[in-house]
Amino acid sequence: MITRLCIFGVGLIGGSLALALRRAGLCESVIGCSRDEANLQAAQALGVIDEYSLDPVQAVAGADMILLATPLGAMTSVLSSIKDRMPAQAVLTDVGSAKACVVEAVRTVFGRVPGYFVPGHPIAGTEQSGVQAAFADLYCGRRVVLTPLQETDADALERVRAMWQAAGAEVEEMAVDMHDTVLAATSHLPHMAAFALVDSLARMGDHEAIFRYAAGGFRDFTRIASSDPIMWRDICLSNRSALMAMLARYRADLADIEQAIEQGDGDSLLAIFSRAKQARDTFCG
Amino acid sequence: MITRLCIFGVGLIGGSLALALRRAGLCESVIGCSRDEANLQAAQALGVIDEYSLDPVQAVAGADMILLATPLGAMTSVLSSIKDRMPAQAVLTDVGSAKACVVEAVRTVFGRVPGYFVPGHPIAGTEQSGVQAAFADLYCGRRVVLTPLQETDADALERVRAMWQAAGAEVEEMAVDMHDTVLAATSHLPHMAAFALVDSLARMGDHEAIFRYAAGGFRDFTRIASSDPIMWRDICLSNRSALMAMLARYRADLADIEQAIEQGDGDSLLAIFSRAKQARDTFCG
Repeated sequence: MITRLCIFGVGLIGGSLALALRRAGLCESVIGCSRDEANLQAAQALGVIDEYSLDPVQAVAGADMILLATPLGAMTSVLSSIKDRMPAQAVLTDVGSAKACVVEAVRTVFGRVPGYFVPGHPIAGTEQSGVQAAFADLYCGRRVVLTPLQETDADALERVRAMWQAAGAEVEEMAVDMHDTVLAATSHLPHMAAFALVDSLARMGDHEAIFRYAAGGFRDFTRIASSDPIMWRDICLSNRSALMAMLARYRADLADIEQAIEQGDGDSLLAIFSRAKQARDTFCG
Repeated sequence: MITRLCIFGVGLIGGSLALALRRAGLCESVIGCSRDEANLQAAQALGVIDEYSLDPVQAVAGADMILLATPLGAMTSVLSSIKDRMPAQAVLTDVGSAKACVVEAVRTVFGRVPGYFVPGHPIAGTEQSGVQAAFADLYCGRRVVLTPLQETDADALERVRAMWQAAGAEVEEMAVDMHDTVLAATSHLPHMAAFALVDSLARMGDHEAIFRYAAGGFRDFTRIASSDPIMWRDICLSNRSALMAMLARYRADLADIEQAIEQGDGDSLLAIFSRAKQARDTFCG
């Protein structure tokens, strides 16, 4: 049971968790905090939060669970605001899509990694963003990865795990580096591929005529290019080394395809396409 | 009204057209032809075709509409088989995803482009393939692009247009080169991007663990990597120059993103992602 949940950044991710916990009756009150008062007013009107504050210090007062759900680029600022005002017994966790950078931000701001900090990442979301898109079922059956450190208290870890399980999620633990590699491969790289693809077409002279002919496959393929640009800018800059390694790998694979086409090498093309189809059908079938 | 429709390659595309025309009562009989007898038997059992032949010359006898729906790589062979046995009054059309190569194949085999040949391409399909996936509604509301040439008879063009309209499609005309550029951008490049992405991950050492964490966005994004490898090998080799131009453009865009990440250039990333999001939301919203 959470007595007072404080959420920094009340959007799709933070808002959906609040809705899920309230529905489960596991959270007595929710306070939201951000720099955007209109957003907080909307969250309150939607019944996602009970109250809000624009002041991080006020927001965390009395909270026993503090959730950082801002874009990654805003976390250091929030951490700096609250580091000397953490309530006793409060657990601090986050939902950042990259974990090494958040751990590093905490270490820098606090001078150490406090035992009450539990890095986390719900692998859920849609291309929508904002509290208007939040819904209580977002985490049902979805994975939440926690990346506890040596310093992390067992009790804090357990409380964060129980919170996500109450929201319907399957909770797993993973090392920080492994998380960042896995997410670079399965989420961050695909987003780069989709953004680049749509941008390539948008930069063509006759792109309005061209987009008219985009069929179902293109729509599916590019849906994630509707994702929030600021969130993705921050993810790119926060998971830089793992993502750059994946981008280099991907561009090399594209170069292989380009070379095979240039050389009329059908056997190589067939091998690449067959391997990809088999992997897709096996793992995502 | 078609008296006798002859389909070369009875898969998703050819089979769905047959089902649509039969349902509309606009086709008296359908004969299938391919080199795969088991496929033809399945098509007959499913009620997609009335009869079949393994012999192209037998298959076209008495047909007034001949549809080439094989992979692009098989078209020259079919054309060579039937070029001296085309029935009087028969119209010849195709469904190839690239058009310059089909026109060139016809010109090479026939020594000219006959007036009864109408190049066509239904912009429809799923990542499924094979006659088992065929359904009568596949073309409802979808675009079919015809790329008639100076040599094309007005009557032949009208008959092919009426056929696709009877299947529920919206028929448009386009120049051959424009078609190949548009399709390279909106279909062929996205398929390359998806195949390369899944293949990049499949080649990673711990890819089984990695694929476990692929969430909804990844599944949507990579669905088209389940497409038929042989069909896509043929498309690559058939629309080579337009596709290579798009691949070069795409790799350059990816390199821009990679460079911005490396340099910590958040403004450039935000500009790229915002432009892509706006284009996606505007044209596919």
